Amino acid sequence: MGVMTTRRAIRRRGRRASDDLAVESPLVLGLDGEAIATLMRTPGHDLELAAGWLTVESGVRAPQDVVQLRSCREDDTDRVHITLAPGVAPPRPRAFVTSAACGVCSADVLDLAPLQHSAPHTDGWQVASTVLAGLPDALRTRQKAFSKTGGVHAAALARTDGSLLGAFEDVGRHNAVDKVVGRALLDGLLPATDLLLVVSGRVSFEIVQKAVAAGVAGIVAVSAPSSLAVDLAREHGLLLAGMVRAGDLNVYAGEDLLT
Amino acid sequence: MGVMTTRRAIRRRGRRASDDLAVESPLVLGLDGEAIATLMRTPGHDLELAAGWLTVESGVRAPQDVVQLRSCREDDTDRVHITLAPGVAPPRPRAFVTSAACGVCSADVLDLAPLQHSAPHTDGWQVASTVLAGLPDALRTRQKAFSKTGGVHAAALARTDGSLLGAFEDVGRHNAVDKVVGRALLDGLLPATDLLLVVSGRVSFEIVQKAVAAGVAGIVAVSAPSSLAVDLAREHGLLLAGMVRAGDLNVYAGEDLLT
Repeated sequence: MGVMTTRRAIRRRGRRASDDLAVESPLVLGLDGEAIATLMRTPGHDLELAAGWLTVESGVRAPQDVVQLRSCREDDTDRVHITLAPGVAPPRPRAFVTSAACGVCSADVLDLAPLQHSAPHTDGWQVASTVLAGLPDALRTRQKAFSKTGGVHAAALARTDGSLLGAFEDVGRHNAVDKVVGRALLDGLLPATDLLLVVSGRVSFEIVQKAVAAGVAGIVAVSAPSSLAVDLAREHGLLLAGMVRAGDLNVYAGEDLLT
Repeated sequence: MGVMTTRRAIRRRGRRASDDLAVESPLVLGLDGEAIATLMRTPGHDLELAAGWLTVESGVRAPQDVVQLRSCREDDTDRVHITLAPGVAPPRPRAFVTSAACGVCSADVLDLAPLQHSAPHTDGWQVASTVLAGLPDALRTRQKAFSKTGGVHAAALARTDGSLLGAFEDVGRHNAVDKVVGRALLDGLLPATDLLLVVSGRVSFEIVQKAVAAGVAGIVAVSAPSSLAVDLAREHGLLLAGMVRAGDLNVYAGEDLLT
């Protein structure tokens, strides 16, 4: 497992001091001998990160869709080499689109919700708001790197009784969620029906995309969601609670799922 | 100018309420009639965002490198059409690399600091730590969308006397910085020698990359930097102050630039 924090000499109140920082370093993902992505991440759980990234970005939906994930260090760089099962759709570029039929440029590049998606919860599934209110504190107790550095996000899955099912940290909000989703994929837990995704920060559109790809019943966040995050959660029937602080919370979507 | 916040019906303490949310929506950047990127951003200052994105991702370094930035709405989608001057290097894909000479996969995909970079400050340039300590509060007074939503980041340039030179907000930390850099580009202020970049959140490697591309003398952040952010700041001779709270701060790089 990689080192998640590191120490640097700094200056504080005019004096020399030392400070623990979250490690950020590149992880190159390779598919069929070709580098397909470079993720800036906190080391540790690279296989989970790669698996979760694939779940969101490719056709991977089950452990058997991934033939092999092999972690190594080559040319002074951390890498995960991916082998997908035959017929599984590979990741496709998202940040840049290489071709598009254009008026000037066309709307079909905007495939913003390319999600295969199961019912996020079983019939009659509900969760107590008192449980939701306690989840950020439960996550906080697992945030070891945050406690040292103050600069790391965290995410976990949670059951309706408030217990957590794995928790991961990363300098990137998205990476922390990818690690959670990847561990669940590798454990055969996807779709994560009736489970909740707990995140330490804000909820953007992309976080909801990841939640939908993982098939969770809802998202519980310490901070605020964006407009599009709320809209996508409602569209997919997810519970979305945010600004969960000091026992209080806002319910942005799926209020009928609360007791 | 776009609407930065929007209202949604929510439930709080078991009662119906309404809440202001930061708007997040896609902006498609088009170059020579082809869509090249989709940014999830808070509307408003789309031209600044496009200009700043180009400064970091392409060969654009001066206003005359951009022949035209045209904002429009087509097919229900916000777009900025870009025309670069002849000979200016276009943006290149970063998130996914399309080809790589491979052992299994090669290190040459890891072009993490492809930065043209001027001296970040003039000889003898210094700034008072008391000025740095006040910059987050100065930025805070400009964060109108944050005050309403609690879910928006901000960035600005600052002079050594503590005055701010433009401030922009966005749901994305990176976008807020791109808007600042873009405005400075369009105003002919780049490289932003002897100016400071102030950011409301944490400092990752990518934020330092943007600061280097803009040519600022340093970065002042409310929260913590990552290890790689500190390393890159030191490598480029930038001042980096973080955890600026309640009059206190940590200096991670460039302590000789402080008085």
